[in-house]
Amino acid sequence: MARYRLSIHISPRRGILDPQGQAVSDALHSLGFPEVRDVRVGRYLVAEVDAATPDAARAQATAMCEKLLANPVTEDFAIAAVEPA
Amino acid sequence: MARYRLSIHISPRRGILDPQGQAVSDALHSLGFPEVRDVRVGRYLVAEVDAATPDAARAQATAMCEKLLANPVTEDFAIAAVEPA
Repeated sequence: MARYRLSIHISPRRGILDPQGQAVSDALHSLGFPEVRDVRVGRYLVAEVDAATPDAARAQATAMCEKLLANPVTEDFAIAAVEPA
Repeated sequence: MARYRLSIHISPRRGILDPQGQAVSDALHSLGFPEVRDVRVGRYLVAEVDAATPDAARAQATAMCEKLLANPVTEDFAIAAVEPA
């Protein structure tokens, strides 16, 4: 068993309204970034797990997202990285 | 000018208490992932900007984080990716 650090991205699904992203976009426009568009705000999780292989760690990350971390109706998730911790 | 898609990670700084990460960690333990440790929950932002070069787009992303997106006392940010949109 080795220890792996997982990085996970969870984002509002395309086509789902993202009021937080809209608020950030409006704030950026008034702070001098008028050309910013399509802001979407999601969550970025980092965690450490024990697993036999990187693929097993990735499978654990996927299971965690499906069971708890991501809302399957409104959010997409991606395992951004699996690295030795 | 070209259009770039920015990906930004904002995380609670090491050593700062992360109650959301602790709550996620506890929930994962009771859902059958007993070995998960060091969960930290941050934000993952995606946005599009116009810029002359990828470096200029990255500089804009950094300025946005410093001015609005990240709390400099409690959070670290990283520009995870700058890609043509």
